[in-house]
Amino acid sequence: MKSELIKLYDDRDDVTLTTYVISDSPELLGGNKRPAIIICPGGAYLSCSDREGEAVALRFAAMGYHAFVLRYSTYMGGEFGFPDFQKELEVNEKSIHPTPMREIGKAMLVLRKHADEWLIDVDKIAICGFSAGAHNCAMYSVYWDKPIIHEYFNEKPEAFKPAATILGYTLSDYLLMRSLPKSPIDHKLFEASNLALTGNKNPDEEKLKEVSPALHVSESTPPMFLWATSEDTLVPVQHTLKMATALADKDIPFEVHVYEKGPHGLSLATQATAQAKSQIYQDASRWIVEAEAWLEKRFALELPEVTPWELMGQGRE
Amino acid sequence: MKSELIKLYDDRDDVTLTTYVISDSPELLGGNKRPAIIICPGGAYLSCSDREGEAVALRFAAMGYHAFVLRYSTYMGGEFGFPDFQKELEVNEKSIHPTPMREIGKAMLVLRKHADEWLIDVDKIAICGFSAGAHNCAMYSVYWDKPIIHEYFNEKPEAFKPAATILGYTLSDYLLMRSLPKSPIDHKLFEASNLALTGNKNPDEEKLKEVSPALHVSESTPPMFLWATSEDTLVPVQHTLKMATALADKDIPFEVHVYEKGPHGLSLATQATAQAKSQIYQDASRWIVEAEAWLEKRFALELPEVTPWELMGQGRE
Repeated sequence: MKSELIKLYDDRDDVTLTTYVISDSPELLGGNKRPAIIICPGGAYLSCSDREGEAVALRFAAMGYHAFVLRYSTYMGGEFGFPDFQKELEVNEKSIHPTPMREIGKAMLVLRKHADEWLIDVDKIAICGFSAGAHNCAMYSVYWDKPIIHEYFNEKPEAFKPAATILGYTLSDYLLMRSLPKSPIDHKLFEASNLALTGNKNPDEEKLKEVSPALHVSESTPPMFLWATSEDTLVPVQHTLKMATALADKDIPFEVHVYEKGPHGLSLATQATAQAKSQIYQDASRWIVEAEAWLEKRFALELPEVTPWELMGQGRE
Repeated sequence: MKSELIKLYDDRDDVTLTTYVISDSPELLGGNKRPAIIICPGGAYLSCSDREGEAVALRFAAMGYHAFVLRYSTYMGGEFGFPDFQKELEVNEKSIHPTPMREIGKAMLVLRKHADEWLIDVDKIAICGFSAGAHNCAMYSVYWDKPIIHEYFNEKPEAFKPAATILGYTLSDYLLMRSLPKSPIDHKLFEASNLALTGNKNPDEEKLKEVSPALHVSESTPPMFLWATSEDTLVPVQHTLKMATALADKDIPFEVHVYEKGPHGLSLATQATAQAKSQIYQDASRWIVEAEAWLEKRFALELPEVTPWELMGQGRE
């Protein structure tokens, strides 16, 4: 496994792509290319949570896919945790839309550049995000072929096409978010998150619509796998259902798994991604098994029917 | 993830420990130590198969355990594949018993030496092998506290204690192996494998008993998880059942899963470890899920009940 940290900007340490590139072997794919998946952790656009990074990448790599964790621009500039919500927060220009979703595009270009070295099948690159990272992936999924991405990089739209998108407890509609009741602390968190993403604690309706991926689903939106818990009080499950409905309206293939129990931010919902036992939920942890089956329908490794040993007529079956 | 190749002998490239060390984070274990697992690929003591290495390590790492792939001494000296069975094979002194099982001991010492750096809980180191690698782990599991290991390294026996052992389609009894019918090609393969492990194509009964772990199970043998397929014609399932019976006779905790379908050498039985579709078996692939649950009974990460955020009274549940 080649695991290294790549900086997306020479002069910044906070925006990085961590590689989990599977070793090639004559006993496995023997030089043939594999699909890949780019993972975007959550963290309310304030930071990128380590709970939604490496362990998730390893789980996808164990399926036979190269994995990458993208730490995109956030308000905290790479620092751990959240700012002090009691203070008046200043704008950080670096984390404002469209920068975070453009950085998924930048990661796509890095994968394409290294495709021969890392043995990546560039037609099979999925993106997977959690919470704000899911929102970022959803945004990218509806904007990848628009000028805001490809003109910025001066590349053809095709270079940015995601083959599939996986969204864990996503936010999909900021108008819906504004209309749903929330606790005072959650209200403060969303003001800070809004400031991080839009530069404004209370963005106007036009801006809220612009950053609401459920409102921009089109024929070019990739197939999606969505999962969430119905008990999530921070980003209510309605966001997942709204996104799924938008996909259904446009005939985009998708799968949804809503588990009953569990709070926001479960990641794999196992000990591997937990900071405390309160983040372990056996039922919800099955999402990754469902996602594995769903991905394999698109990403199945190209394998011969039998091994060279069997071909030699020496098979034992 | 720290993935690097460590040579177990300065002057040899063929005996290596590849690390898959999980990154620490204040959002995960925050500096606390984790269990670890050492994986021994199979290959009839002729070579070490890449199909039973990295992908298995990644799957265990995704459970939250540091993982290591041990490429122990084999007949081919690190070369891929098998020797030409049609030729008269010469002895390779380097791969002969007790060297391969001693190298598991050597790997244990490497993990202990780096325990503070890698954050390894040295009381929770499991070993996991496949085929000849499973035999090697089974041998180590019955010999770890004997002078053949600890006197050789001039260390106390405790330094070598495995906390748990996982055996995939193991060979456990060479007398049983000699008595079971086999095809001409399998006969040649076992002659070569015997030569690799014992220096003799047809070892005498005393030697066969010495290298038959099922005959040496004792009170100090660690808990074991065994799995195999009942259709395995190369290393028949009787070896797994014989080992399990020996464990039962000594009241050693163990679990066995025998799946009906599938040939020898399935590894994870998924695309991630397959060279061909003929090595993918959905039923047998569930062994790793059973092993995950079994390991967690012993290796559950030490986590607080609730997160710091919840402790602050800001929990949302």
